[in-house]
Amino acid sequence: MYDRLKGFRDFYPEEMAARREIVDTVEDACRRYGFRETASPFLEPAEMWTDKSGEDIVDELYAFEDKGERHVTLAPELTPTAARMIAAKQQELSKPIKWFSTRPFWRYEQVQQGRFREFYQTNADIFGTDDPRADAEVIALAAEYLSDLGLDADDVEIRVSHRDILGAVLRSFDSEVDVRAAIRAVDKSEKIDRTEYHDLLHDAGLSYDEAAEFDDLLAATDRDSLSELADTAGTDTARDAVSNLTAVLDAVDDLGAGEFCTLSLETARGLDYYTGVVFECFDAAGEVSRAVLGGGRYDDLIEEFGGQPTPAVGFGQGYATLPLLLERAGVAPEESLSTDYYVLQVGDTEPAAASVTRELRAQGHVVETDLSGRSFGAQLGYADSINAETVVIVGENDLAEGNYTLRDMETGEQETVPVSEFPA
Amino acid sequence: MYDRLKGFRDFYPEEMAARREIVDTVEDACRRYGFRETASPFLEPAEMWTDKSGEDIVDELYAFEDKGERHVTLAPELTPTAARMIAAKQQELSKPIKWFSTRPFWRYEQVQQGRFREFYQTNADIFGTDDPRADAEVIALAAEYLSDLGLDADDVEIRVSHRDILGAVLRSFDSEVDVRAAIRAVDKSEKIDRTEYHDLLHDAGLSYDEAAEFDDLLAATDRDSLSELADTAGTDTARDAVSNLTAVLDAVDDLGAGEFCTLSLETARGLDYYTGVVFECFDAAGEVSRAVLGGGRYDDLIEEFGGQPTPAVGFGQGYATLPLLLERAGVAPEESLSTDYYVLQVGDTEPAAASVTRELRAQGHVVETDLSGRSFGAQLGYADSINAETVVIVGENDLAEGNYTLRDMETGEQETVPVSEFPA
Repeated sequence: MYDRLKGFRDFYPEEMAARREIVDTVEDACRRYGFRETASPFLEPAEMWTDKSGEDIVDELYAFEDKGERHVTLAPELTPTAARMIAAKQQELSKPIKWFSTRPFWRYEQVQQGRFREFYQTNADIFGTDDPRADAEVIALAAEYLSDLGLDADDVEIRVSHRDILGAVLRSFDSEVDVRAAIRAVDKSEKIDRTEYHDLLHDAGLSYDEAAEFDDLLAATDRDSLSELADTAGTDTARDAVSNLTAVLDAVDDLGAGEFCTLSLETARGLDYYTGVVFECFDAAGEVSRAVLGGGRYDDLIEEFGGQPTPAVGFGQGYATLPLLLERAGVAPEESLSTDYYVLQVGDTEPAAASVTRELRAQGHVVETDLSGRSFGAQLGYADSINAETVVIVGENDLAEGNYTLRDMETGEQETVPVSEFPA
Repeated sequence: MYDRLKGFRDFYPEEMAARREIVDTVEDACRRYGFRETASPFLEPAEMWTDKSGEDIVDELYAFEDKGERHVTLAPELTPTAARMIAAKQQELSKPIKWFSTRPFWRYEQVQQGRFREFYQTNADIFGTDDPRADAEVIALAAEYLSDLGLDADDVEIRVSHRDILGAVLRSFDSEVDVRAAIRAVDKSEKIDRTEYHDLLHDAGLSYDEAAEFDDLLAATDRDSLSELADTAGTDTARDAVSNLTAVLDAVDDLGAGEFCTLSLETARGLDYYTGVVFECFDAAGEVSRAVLGGGRYDDLIEEFGGQPTPAVGFGQGYATLPLLLERAGVAPEESLSTDYYVLQVGDTEPAAASVTRELRAQGHVVETDLSGRSFGAQLGYADSINAETVVIVGENDLAEGNYTLRDMETGEQETVPVSEFPA
């Protein structure tokens, strides 16, 4: 007997049915928003990550040498692959390029609740425009499918921030600050206590007084205090960032997704490659602690991967935390099978049963029939196990009189219908 | 600039749209036939193949050692994984178990037309019944979606055979025959010339006279000559196999898929694990030479993988040859984008444009709008590039009068509609 690998999952039909419903809802919103599906290799040249990524990612790669002595890796994220695809067809693609895809990624990390070594994401990205409406469009897309899944603004909170505001405020202090390190500290602030957070800011170059002041400044949650913050920082970068963030939030309002969003400068995103607006979605009730999705603007990355300069904004929606949130909010899809008809064969009625099975399937119904020559009772038990709504009993005596018997599995009621009238 | 790996593919939106339509058609038929979707790890313990598979497969594995020093491999096929999943939940699963899944597999082989190193398959299998109706159900399922894709019995031919008939006939000769080797020769017979074929049969133990006789016997294509063949072989195994094959073909007729099928004893399937009925689907016009799909009964495999004895029948539908066949038959889905509405913004109309965009999307339409602040002409060009059916022009002057202008992109005709009446 073989075991599956740790951190990898088997999806049996019941769980898969619920998962399919979630993914379909996300993808359906992507399509309505005019994002186009793409697909990409699961194995890529390892250099795509070892050349540019941080140690965190490189240490977790499923990398190896293939039989042609190429250094290859299972992809740990989509962005370098998307960048490669865009760079390869830069001239042919009409912009903006709006792509989505759902696929697995792999990272060799500690396995824990909501974290696997093989994990699925839907990535949705817009390439080729730095207009705030593009940032707003991806945020509104996320709000749209979260709402389609049954979540409302009391359930989830999309926290929106801007990298340059943090940077400008940090640079406005007298001390010499390692901005990236300080932003990483901000990204961790929710998970650690205040003292530890201030220690990290101190490690990044701030004095403890500056750390406390910085902490206070980040508490800004409305647009007025955002303007004050820009004035405090006193640089064009800060003012541009504030005006960009404000424009994005206005455009999000126009798209009807405003109620899902809050301004939260404490949202920083761990990855270094973000260049503008960043956002993360959390359980508004605070029960599910990990982010449900995260994304932002990364205007420099396509060029770093060999393409022409191409602004970009997008996000990754994972499927490990989202089901936990749906569960918490009481709107998780049911983990069960659904079947429209079970065609039950009694006696020597195989051709008639096959014929009604075929007609019902041709009408688009989900239909099963006996494939094992089982008894009436065993067939009824099986029909129940697959949640058949209706059982069509094809019996010798009924057939001789030109009838089928239909049994409603919810109520147990039966009715006789002429063969010529069923299916209608 | 990075290149993708040889034998791996990027799918850009146009090609992906066509591919999605094909896969959706196949999966939709699977669902109507009562097959349930599953998903499974892409990386598995390498022993699942190195312990049991033939050298052909083991030589082509993308196998490596992970950071935990486990010997792992990208899966080259589904069956061992399905067997592992069934063995793990044997008691809980109500039988028959009908599963399908679409996913990639990997083999390090020579790259050529219609053969890649990363390739997708939909696998559909029934576990837990050896009834001929189960064999018929998977064959009818294949005929169903081939028909849904626009192919008819003049386009495709599902060739059906039975492993034991070949075995029994081979064993009925005076010579000592290596049955597996001879069956592999039969599997190759279409691709090599007659002399080479007879040489292979001779290598497997037949005299050249017996090889010629065997070749003639396999020409049987109707049920009468099948019975004669059973009598020639003169064993119970042969008679049982003929009666099983006949029952399967009858059940296929009952399910309305008979016209797609031909009896073809020359169909053997290369893999050793098949135990009963085997089938392959080919281009009836002979232009596309590789099999479109293939499958059969494999009653011993689940037990070999550590489960309880569990009869099984199923097939794999690949997506490399099928598009070539659809192309040949003139029914390939279009490789193009489709968009219901493009909302064109002229002047300072962003909130109104965002609002109509949002309403149209809420109605289920695929809608794009300006994300780059472009000119009227540039927006119209973009709308054309994404094949927008209708352009909704949201202009300052129109808006002041309470109107939008709708432009039909097929005819170029325009009409003015009141904001209050659109979308209806």
